[in-house]
Amino acid sequence: MPVQALIFDVFGTLLDWHGGVAREASRLLSALRPDVDGHAFARAWRDRYQPGMEPIRQGARAYADLDTLHAESLDGVLATLRLGEAVPDEIKHELVLAWHRLDAWPEVPAALARLKERYLLAPCSNAHVRLAIAHARRNALPWDAVLGAEFAQDYKPKSAVYLRAVEALRLAPDAVMMVAAHSSDLAAAAACGLATAHVARPDESGPGTGETAPLVPVDLAARDLADLARQLGC
Amino acid sequence: MPVQALIFDVFGTLLDWHGGVAREASRLLSALRPDVDGHAFARAWRDRYQPGMEPIRQGARAYADLDTLHAESLDGVLATLRLGEAVPDEIKHELVLAWHRLDAWPEVPAALARLKERYLLAPCSNAHVRLAIAHARRNALPWDAVLGAEFAQDYKPKSAVYLRAVEALRLAPDAVMMVAAHSSDLAAAAACGLATAHVARPDESGPGTGETAPLVPVDLAARDLADLARQLGC
Repeated sequence: MPVQALIFDVFGTLLDWHGGVAREASRLLSALRPDVDGHAFARAWRDRYQPGMEPIRQGARAYADLDTLHAESLDGVLATLRLGEAVPDEIKHELVLAWHRLDAWPEVPAALARLKERYLLAPCSNAHVRLAIAHARRNALPWDAVLGAEFAQDYKPKSAVYLRAVEALRLAPDAVMMVAAHSSDLAAAAACGLATAHVARPDESGPGTGETAPLVPVDLAARDLADLARQLGC
Repeated sequence: MPVQALIFDVFGTLLDWHGGVAREASRLLSALRPDVDGHAFARAWRDRYQPGMEPIRQGARAYADLDTLHAESLDGVLATLRLGEAVPDEIKHELVLAWHRLDAWPEVPAALARLKERYLLAPCSNAHVRLAIAHARRNALPWDAVLGAEFAQDYKPKSAVYLRAVEALRLAPDAVMMVAAHSSDLAAAAACGLATAHVARPDESGPGTGETAPLVPVDLAARDLADLARQLGC
């Protein structure tokens, strides 16, 4: 069964979350804290990302979207900077919206446009629908549908997220390829029977922080999304 | 709260289901039944549409998609033509796919492109995701996301379908406008607090069969989708 659809991790794989959140944090907090390190702020916030989703994955909490989880974890990040009391609610709201204002890695929009001529394309991200729409409108991501966490009401790497995406596409799992820069995401997708492609993002959280190659067996490994498109004949 | 998103009924409102199914039925059945009336065939099949969804709305049956319900009701339609035994499974499968091969009313793609500059756009149809993708790809429908029956795991006019769409858009109900050619759909959306727009489709199931004007109070009534775009300042 040849691959007929590609589904994508978004944060890190398609979008530069680290640079975007660092930029917005510097912009929004510099008046209160001129020495704020946006990059460290972004990493500290992201460090609270996986733990925030865990109670939902465990079934101990109903699905809540990333805006909600980001707002909850933001207070902890601000507290470590001793900014917890000083930041007005409007600025906190704008900080949460930093995750809506992320830019794609440079080659992504053109590569997706080429891939769309041959494949169905959808995000399979932990982002909710409205967040995915913001990403798509800002970066011209040509999705056929928005799949992922909100569609499944759960978070990756829970199998339901991959399997509900496959079901919505009405394809066999091995006709759907999960594309991600994170080996853990690809390992979970492969366990569900999906094809997998790794995209290197060596600078995901700053220089030298990301995966340069897959740590698990994959069907394809690409230097970036343009390379993936070439390998897929697009 | 001004309207920020438009969600759309699809069959009849945006797409000519009657003409498309009639064309495919004539094409696929003419070898077996040269006198087949594609238009009557399309209407007879559509007559079985609402009853097929009813057990799911009532909670007596789990969500099953329109391909499944169309395949089930097709046998009844073929039986009334005394074609039940004669039609091979491949042709039945192609007949179900007739619902994937519908053309938009002529003004629709350009009107949606204009509306997209100002509003979030999504189908809120009883079509499932893969069917909505087929419609969008065939007719260049520029959706921001695919909402509707499969997202809610229920069928209109159940309130969950409208309310899950509103929730996914992260807007208040009155910031979302339901657009449909059917007053029953709009009445249900209005009961959920949505804004409503009626689009006249007087020839929906053949000449003179459709609604020329809304039968219930609505916020806007339009002659077609280009007229709706004009009334909304697009």
